[in-house]
Amino acid sequence: MLIIGELINCTRKRIAKAVEKKDAKYIQKIALDQIEAGADILDVNAGIAGMEVELLPWLVETIQAVTDVQLCIDSADGAALAAALPVCKKKPMINSITDEAKVVEVILPLVAENKTQIIALCTSDEGAPQNADDRLKIASSLVGKLTDAGVPPEDIYVDPCVYPISTDINSGTAFLNSLEQMRDCCGGVNTVCGLSNISFGVPQRKILNRVFMIMAMVKNLDAVILDPRDKQMMANIIATEALLGRDEFCMNYIQAYRDGKLEVSK
Amino acid sequence: MLIIGELINCTRKRIAKAVEKKDAKYIQKIALDQIEAGADILDVNAGIAGMEVELLPWLVETIQAVTDVQLCIDSADGAALAAALPVCKKKPMINSITDEAKVVEVILPLVAENKTQIIALCTSDEGAPQNADDRLKIASSLVGKLTDAGVPPEDIYVDPCVYPISTDINSGTAFLNSLEQMRDCCGGVNTVCGLSNISFGVPQRKILNRVFMIMAMVKNLDAVILDPRDKQMMANIIATEALLGRDEFCMNYIQAYRDGKLEVSK
Repeated sequence: MLIIGELINCTRKRIAKAVEKKDAKYIQKIALDQIEAGADILDVNAGIAGMEVELLPWLVETIQAVTDVQLCIDSADGAALAAALPVCKKKPMINSITDEAKVVEVILPLVAENKTQIIALCTSDEGAPQNADDRLKIASSLVGKLTDAGVPPEDIYVDPCVYPISTDINSGTAFLNSLEQMRDCCGGVNTVCGLSNISFGVPQRKILNRVFMIMAMVKNLDAVILDPRDKQMMANIIATEALLGRDEFCMNYIQAYRDGKLEVSK
Repeated sequence: MLIIGELINCTRKRIAKAVEKKDAKYIQKIALDQIEAGADILDVNAGIAGMEVELLPWLVETIQAVTDVQLCIDSADGAALAAALPVCKKKPMINSITDEAKVVEVILPLVAENKTQIIALCTSDEGAPQNADDRLKIASSLVGKLTDAGVPPEDIYVDPCVYPISTDINSGTAFLNSLEQMRDCCGGVNTVCGLSNISFGVPQRKILNRVFMIMAMVKNLDAVILDPRDKQMMANIIATEALLGRDEFCMNYIQAYRDGKLEVSK
């Protein structure tokens, strides 16, 4: 399971404040904390109105001053992406493209020219998908455009889009069913999602998010965007890998135990 | 999800002690505790050598003095079952039958005559199943014998048998794959399992047991034998039901929250 740490995101007030002040030490601490907690990739979002073109490359360089971890450049602004992508030392991921014509027009050339990995969201000009078939249809269309532009399927991470069960009790199963069928639908692509939208409007959201993660792993999820400091979530992921037969002799699980990463809650 | 509370079992020292002394109050407390914690059925095991014929009916009557919950009579002793089954006020479940000739000979007539529900374990005279296909083959044979004897499929709970991932890393997936195919293989039957065997020989077993429960629910598990006092396990089950679209408007989840049953661990 590829873990994309979500914390360096200017929609978070504390991060926005640090980025505006160019508080490199704070950003670097959050970067290293996430890696220590198990992140394989760090999402990087500098979405402050009017300043993104300047701040996004700064954020990339600030993080790269302390770690060589892969970065996921999180922006819808073509100019900011064009400024930040060439600064990345490792092959970056872009978060994200959708199947909306205006988005494809801006993002697709950046993916192709910079040979990046790309998160492909299953939304289109017709809006949000209502069911599993909608998701597969949008994915098929969008993946087709990406591969036609020369992006290899293994660089594509399709996000079928999680919507809250509070507004539609079938949101969870629609997502999971599309996840299960995604590889057959779009040969060779990976899958990714953020989790927390599933529990919007329902109490004790962490319980739902943690459980939904396990369910998604059973249905072939390859990567996830989350807060890796959630110890129970990370322990569950390590346990699920073992239970899915992906951790020979449970070596990774046992190592995590020795490292104190597998606390049992009451 | 049908929850079968596992605690009243004489393989547990404290229970064996209470049963030998005919300490009705202690047994009744454990019965009521399990129901309060969410058990729908109570497993009842009086497996003390030489005393089961006397103690099993006593245990049934002791529990029935304080609750009318359904009981799952857990014995391999035909005489003890014959003594205990007629005492049950509600239609009992028997735990268990296997596809071993000697077991079928003893248990099958008791199931048919007493019109009980039955847990059908996927083991045979050839031993334990090695993979999903073995499980489906044994299930098909055993379910055939049960239905031929007049047992309706809806009274049959097939247990594909959980084995530890510590001895075979594919144990989890073999179990889950057989679970997913069981309804197609043996039309109309239910599925059941105990969980804890999966984590035998691995540290922090509760993490693995709790995660495996969610995975099994994704693969159509209908019933489970467990300790319902494990609050995190029970919270996960309630969350999984909601995420599988089985809890309209999340009413059961929200009620559990109001009842203080959904604590979030760190």
